[in-house]
Amino acid sequence: MNPKRYFPILQWLPGYGRATLGSDLLAAVIVTIMLIPQSLAYAMLAGLPPEVGLYASIAPLVVYAVFGTSRTLAVGPVAVVSLMTAAAVGQIAPQGSPEYLGAALVLALMSGLMLTLMGVARLGFLANFLSHPVISGFITASGLIIAASQLKHVLGVEASGHNLLELLVGLAGNLGSVNGPTLAIGLAVLAFLYAARRWLKPGLLRLGVPGRPADMLTKAAPILAVAVTTLATWGLGLDERGVAVVGAVPAGLPPLTLPGFDSGLWSQLFVAALLISIVGFVESVSVGQTLAAKRRQRIDPDQELVGLGTSNIAASFTGGMPVTGGFARSVVNFDAGAETPAAGAFTAVGIGVAALLLTPLIAYLPIATLAATIIVAVLSLVDLPAIRRTWAYSRSDFAAMLATILVTLGHGVESGITVGVGLSLALHLYRTSRPHSAVVGRVPGSEHFRNVQRHAVETDERLAILRVDESLYFANARYLEDTVMELAARQPGLQNIVLACQAVNVIDASALESLEAINARLKDADVRLHLAEVKGPVMDRLKNTEFCHELTGHVFLSTYDAWRELRGESDGTLSRRCAELQMTSPRQP
Amino acid sequence: MNPKRYFPILQWLPGYGRATLGSDLLAAVIVTIMLIPQSLAYAMLAGLPPEVGLYASIAPLVVYAVFGTSRTLAVGPVAVVSLMTAAAVGQIAPQGSPEYLGAALVLALMSGLMLTLMGVARLGFLANFLSHPVISGFITASGLIIAASQLKHVLGVEASGHNLLELLVGLAGNLGSVNGPTLAIGLAVLAFLYAARRWLKPGLLRLGVPGRPADMLTKAAPILAVAVTTLATWGLGLDERGVAVVGAVPAGLPPLTLPGFDSGLWSQLFVAALLISIVGFVESVSVGQTLAAKRRQRIDPDQELVGLGTSNIAASFTGGMPVTGGFARSVVNFDAGAETPAAGAFTAVGIGVAALLLTPLIAYLPIATLAATIIVAVLSLVDLPAIRRTWAYSRSDFAAMLATILVTLGHGVESGITVGVGLSLALHLYRTSRPHSAVVGRVPGSEHFRNVQRHAVETDERLAILRVDESLYFANARYLEDTVMELAARQPGLQNIVLACQAVNVIDASALESLEAINARLKDADVRLHLAEVKGPVMDRLKNTEFCHELTGHVFLSTYDAWRELRGESDGTLSRRCAELQMTSPRQP
Repeated sequence: MNPKRYFPILQWLPGYGRATLGSDLLAAVIVTIMLIPQSLAYAMLAGLPPEVGLYASIAPLVVYAVFGTSRTLAVGPVAVVSLMTAAAVGQIAPQGSPEYLGAALVLALMSGLMLTLMGVARLGFLANFLSHPVISGFITASGLIIAASQLKHVLGVEASGHNLLELLVGLAGNLGSVNGPTLAIGLAVLAFLYAARRWLKPGLLRLGVPGRPADMLTKAAPILAVAVTTLATWGLGLDERGVAVVGAVPAGLPPLTLPGFDSGLWSQLFVAALLISIVGFVESVSVGQTLAAKRRQRIDPDQELVGLGTSNIAASFTGGMPVTGGFARSVVNFDAGAETPAAGAFTAVGIGVAALLLTPLIAYLPIATLAATIIVAVLSLVDLPAIRRTWAYSRSDFAAMLATILVTLGHGVESGITVGVGLSLALHLYRTSRPHSAVVGRVPGSEHFRNVQRHAVETDERLAILRVDESLYFANARYLEDTVMELAARQPGLQNIVLACQAVNVIDASALESLEAINARLKDADVRLHLAEVKGPVMDRLKNTEFCHELTGHVFLSTYDAWRELRGESDGTLSRRCAELQMTSPRQP
Repeated sequence: MNPKRYFPILQWLPGYGRATLGSDLLAAVIVTIMLIPQSLAYAMLAGLPPEVGLYASIAPLVVYAVFGTSRTLAVGPVAVVSLMTAAAVGQIAPQGSPEYLGAALVLALMSGLMLTLMGVARLGFLANFLSHPVISGFITASGLIIAASQLKHVLGVEASGHNLLELLVGLAGNLGSVNGPTLAIGLAVLAFLYAARRWLKPGLLRLGVPGRPADMLTKAAPILAVAVTTLATWGLGLDERGVAVVGAVPAGLPPLTLPGFDSGLWSQLFVAALLISIVGFVESVSVGQTLAAKRRQRIDPDQELVGLGTSNIAASFTGGMPVTGGFARSVVNFDAGAETPAAGAFTAVGIGVAALLLTPLIAYLPIATLAATIIVAVLSLVDLPAIRRTWAYSRSDFAAMLATILVTLGHGVESGITVGVGLSLALHLYRTSRPHSAVVGRVPGSEHFRNVQRHAVETDERLAILRVDESLYFANARYLEDTVMELAARQPGLQNIVLACQAVNVIDASALESLEAINARLKDADVRLHLAEVKGPVMDRLKNTEFCHELTGHVFLSTYDAWRELRGESDGTLSRRCAELQMTSPRQP
């Protein structure tokens, strides 16, 4: 066992020096400033008190620094996971109740345990079965739902619902009771943040500010919006004119919490925890990989599972909520020059200081400001061009994407991601159950063989050559049986079938039985089965099998050898009996 | 819509002639004689009254003749499905109760509906995901459990249990109360049937009886055992000396039954019905394919689902039980010369006559005789050499097989097959998530490129050529990202990476995004990405993508072209910019 693998902190901590410390500290300050409004906002999105967002940005960051393999990933509450948390916990208890808070802790703990176990069992590859179009569709649809769910805070009206239609209908019904000052704040913040994204950075660049600081200042726009609107609300007494504010937030470090171990609650939250784990992991690992690649570093997906899992467990014991690696904050961390996960630990200190000292200051922070922050952030997740691109490239991928979007918008996040995962898997199983293969013929005058359906090639009615384009294993073996038997049934004068195996890397036990069945059935039909271009390692395993002894035909080194021999154009020296092959064929891949 | 596809009866009925009628009638008589004791025995194995087995061998056969695509498959109660029925229904109600009977009908109906729906949705390929070693292990273990469960009838003692251990412990505890006459009958029938299998056919052949009649006579041995032991029991009054007999069986045609529609019951039986459907379908379709191939016929797996599904629905409305295509009886049907499914319909008439007229005669049939029939039949399912063969051929297949056997023996059939399916799927997902690929180098002095780990080849530290051996899609795309980025991280002087794509048949939208990510990440690391030997259809789709425009490197027709160009050994005319490729590459597969 290599401790550096399981405790990636050991890879960088021993060589930690002063220069790195400087970079990491600077990055931590910038990320802290960005993370404070985000943490408050995503806690609100999850239906939790704002301080929970701060708590979830402390211990998890420290734990990730120990167990995570990305040097620059910043973990904490993120939009999509917060939305999924709200959907899951909202079915257990009403918002604001102690049960709601408790269920969020249990959700974080379960998700943490699942991720950690998957990491220990090295199941990171399972995340691959969520196809990109499904993830992209899910995130786009979630972004739309989140934006719609926050509109009520900008308008200052009541509305609720778990899908887009419910939300919009609820909003439309309450448009008469819009609160003027709230709307003014909301629109102002929206306009400001939009303008900052659009024009602040180019403007700063034009004023001679270098690229990186310009970028950092742009990213700090939300904290400015928070400060200004909080001061305005306090100064003008807007909270007394109907502007909803965050209110009293307890000051202090995260409390130690013990998630409940009620088996009923656990089984109710099981599916939600699993989905949150998968979505969070997929999002986090793709951010981590993108950033690592920029510096030619690598992350280990299985260890990332452990890193995220332990972070969530830490969140559940310190009054937090489900967390994962966020895109925006990780990019800021990276751009600000973070070199090691120590930057994350320093950020945790920063957020800790904020939780201790700054909470009294945010009592007058308007909720509309947070809502506007969320809307601007999540609308950047909505990727409509991707829908068009997918349509243009692949209809089956598009179908999976569209189904995911429609179900997410129309029925909610959990159904949406479940349908997406299900469709991805079904598509995958379907596709891998049909191996590519082609009947080939000889390119006249050459030793080459090509697909008879695409090229003008020589064929022979007594001989069929089937090029198998994939490895053979149980999922596609039966389809090969079908293909071969159909070939035999279609061509009445057939005497020989050659399987050209240059693309076959593996033949598993099921496929071996299928080959035996094919051989036996062809024998019943008076057709001989031959193999050509079998790779060395595959031949090594075949040699000791019954199939090899019962094979009615021969083994040829090349398809051309088979062609000549089986048409009687050679002297019979080109073929071998399978059982006589004593050594590894020289034709290894 | 082609009616012949959905009603395969239309393929053979219009041309039905006298000669075929003769063959089918003869086969029907022979199968009827064989099926009577089997039907009684498998009903008993399922814990149902004996007449249920007869009923399940009437309507389903007629319906299969209309919808099934195999010319010779004989459907009816079979051993493994009967065992699974007993396990499922036994959890709902005690044997002998009307609820038990009703649950068996519901199980047949649910399984029938599932199979039919799967057929209509053309989901037959799903059965491919049960690997052969798992099926083989499951059937071997089931055979052992069935044999053990019947021992009590041969001994004339009480014992029950759903796994091997429970059964054997139960038997051992009751060995003191063995009933002598029962044991005598049981052992005599066992010995007789064993001897018939072993010596009757060779003996008859030696006496000059031709092969086929000799075979038929051997297969009729069970009916002889039934007749003799029934007569003996009746004549000697053995039933009064403790020999358990079948007892009064109502004479008459199958009753019309209406399965219950209790949603609680349906959800309790859902998983069992699904497992029975899958196992029954897999067993049936492999028998059907084997027999069809012998006459160069074909079966359509999707339509087979419909055929088996409607047969089960028919069973559920005529007092039957879950049915499927049986191995032994189908082989007998085939060997006896059946040419069309009409033979099945005639068999149904034969069994109907038996149900009407012969049932009074079997009142004295000893249960020990049926049990002995079952034991001899199922022990032929036990294939221990397959375990050794699988071990020798593939360790991972062996692990899946062993787990299936152990769980089936130790915990019961449902857990066993569930573990088997789960393991098969996990194995499949795992395997397909890692595409085969190899870093290749040039065979000195040639245009060929081979795996650097297996061959002494030329390489270049500024250039890495990765041969991708499989199609790229979402399940393995991320693994390719890892492989490429690891390659880049490992070779510091690297300037160019070439993906040699001769084995890539498809690049789906997810894999395209992975290629984009690889391209962008390599760009950040100052490494250019090139493609070589891309197939025509794949290139056609790539041409209109953003990836094509952003590709940092070139597209080469051959790996050798890439090698020369990227080492500066050519004049730069061998490469194309991806975006400039206007027509289909001439190198089609």
